Amino acid sequence: MSELQPVDVVGIGNALVDVLSHEEDDFLDRIGVVKGGMALIDEERAAAIYDLMGPAVEISGGSVANTMVGLVSFGGSARFLSRIRDDQLGLVFAHDLRAAGVEFDVPPATDGPASGCCLIVVTPDAERTLNTFLGASAHFGPDDVDPASIAAAQVLYLEGYLFDTSEAQAAFRAAAALANDSGTLVAVSLSDGFCVERHRDAFTALIEDHVDLLFANSEEITSLYEVDDFDEAAARVRHCGTTAALTRGAAGSLIVTESDSIAVPAVAVERVVDTTGAGDLYAAGFLYGFTHDLPLGVCGQLGSIAAGEVISHIGARPMVSLRDLAADILD
Amino acid sequence: MSELQPVDVVGIGNALVDVLSHEEDDFLDRIGVVKGGMALIDEERAAAIYDLMGPAVEISGGSVANTMVGLVSFGGSARFLSRIRDDQLGLVFAHDLRAAGVEFDVPPATDGPASGCCLIVVTPDAERTLNTFLGASAHFGPDDVDPASIAAAQVLYLEGYLFDTSEAQAAFRAAAALANDSGTLVAVSLSDGFCVERHRDAFTALIEDHVDLLFANSEEITSLYEVDDFDEAAARVRHCGTTAALTRGAAGSLIVTESDSIAVPAVAVERVVDTTGAGDLYAAGFLYGFTHDLPLGVCGQLGSIAAGEVISHIGARPMVSLRDLAADILD
Repeated sequence: MSELQPVDVVGIGNALVDVLSHEEDDFLDRIGVVKGGMALIDEERAAAIYDLMGPAVEISGGSVANTMVGLVSFGGSARFLSRIRDDQLGLVFAHDLRAAGVEFDVPPATDGPASGCCLIVVTPDAERTLNTFLGASAHFGPDDVDPASIAAAQVLYLEGYLFDTSEAQAAFRAAAALANDSGTLVAVSLSDGFCVERHRDAFTALIEDHVDLLFANSEEITSLYEVDDFDEAAARVRHCGTTAALTRGAAGSLIVTESDSIAVPAVAVERVVDTTGAGDLYAAGFLYGFTHDLPLGVCGQLGSIAAGEVISHIGARPMVSLRDLAADILD
Repeated sequence: MSELQPVDVVGIGNALVDVLSHEEDDFLDRIGVVKGGMALIDEERAAAIYDLMGPAVEISGGSVANTMVGLVSFGGSARFLSRIRDDQLGLVFAHDLRAAGVEFDVPPATDGPASGCCLIVVTPDAERTLNTFLGASAHFGPDDVDPASIAAAQVLYLEGYLFDTSEAQAAFRAAAALANDSGTLVAVSLSDGFCVERHRDAFTALIEDHVDLLFANSEEITSLYEVDDFDEAAARVRHCGTTAALTRGAAGSLIVTESDSIAVPAVAVERVVDTTGAGDLYAAGFLYGFTHDLPLGVCGQLGSIAAGEVISHIGARPMVSLRDLAADILD
């Protein structure tokens, strides 16, 4: 275990290549999905939706993978655990992650489902709607959780999306328990309001038992507590025993601890092009600050800077150095 | 033969998915290539270069395929002939072409090399340097030339890049001969200065025997005639019996016929981001005008508009309707 390079954060999440096209609003009705949400789809439906989509761009994604890339862009260090197939999209995913400086040593599977992809429809309001074919990612299980990788990190970061398969949910719990045992802090993103709805009790139990740092947007946190109002959800999260970073789009974020509430403004963006990855990159900035012992308010500021960068262009990974963007704060 | 939908242009070219990354100038030295050129590479070298490249974006390309997409974006109609494998990149290529409205009916090969890709390095000056693994495209041969598709088009458009394999060169000649027989005009792009150098005599013979419309940039046309000076090359091309559209980057284009020379300015672009596809899209605009009986000067203007759009963003295909961009001229 001691041979592994220590890292700031080890992430566990889905390995997905994003397939993005621009469509009008009525396209969402035609394929029967809710704007801004994430729907899990099988291979057949993926083919059917893809057929209807306009010309697309392929660019590596996956929520926690995006966060790991952002963390490295700030100057941090990260490792990623997931499952890919030995196909062209798997190769693309692995290449882009390693080329960005994230440790990713998992050998591709030589059989089973194809590498996963996420069909992303970007509407004229820059909102993104996700249709995810998990593919190989769906088979991430407890055996894929490498204890040495967990122990070698300050923080384990898990995506709520993983809760959608029972195998991955088991892996999620195994990883969190290993982290607790080895003194690695556990951070979780709720990922999606519908995902929270599907697995509310499991999420609540996990947060109480294992989680030190919780990321959620307003839709997710109100869904978790089944309340209508953000302020009510924020009051509830204060007493759940974790630090929570709650994002609210253009309204910035609210960081809640048992004793404190810190409001952090969003970074103004000239033109919002594609909100894909906004939450992932907020988490990247926050986790960089958190693992470098910066005050929580500064963690939130770094999150705002990273989110502001990623929504100003197509794709969910930064196109410039986040370290440079945050030079005023970090250098 | 009469059942095929008639189209303005049928294109024959390589089916390639572009893999683009941004790199500093010294990256080109490290991989040993000349800035702005196109190098043919095998699968092993493709893997080695890809390993060295930073995080990349995948977006469908291929010179003539880009032109066909641009032509449709102007409101024209196009069909494309090429070879792909039944792999993920082949699927992406076919999807993007069809989603853009280009007829592409060729069934993917079930064995043989993988679908082709082009590793594109974009340097800070927005110049692109191409490393092409032809893959399945390399096996495009005379049997892949569908006579009905040639006869159903006003113009057959061929890319010079095809001259790099003997099978494709034979297909190129077969297609040109079929076009001549069926009253379809023949347009050719010289594609690349080094490609012209490798096959100068074959190009010269083809132009004399078959070609009605020639596209070339200044480097390609001076290479063809082995002269140092653009004006000298333009004087030579005047007497070769074809109409020539010669592009000169920011200096616009010169359209040369036996009796006339028309200078067309480039369209000013606020920020040149990536010159990939500039020549391909110039040809798209020109061919739209040409197949809709517009004066040659207007054909050149449409070419300038399309080239200006494509160099203002990443990727070699238009991101907005070229018809809308050219509304002042066309509507």
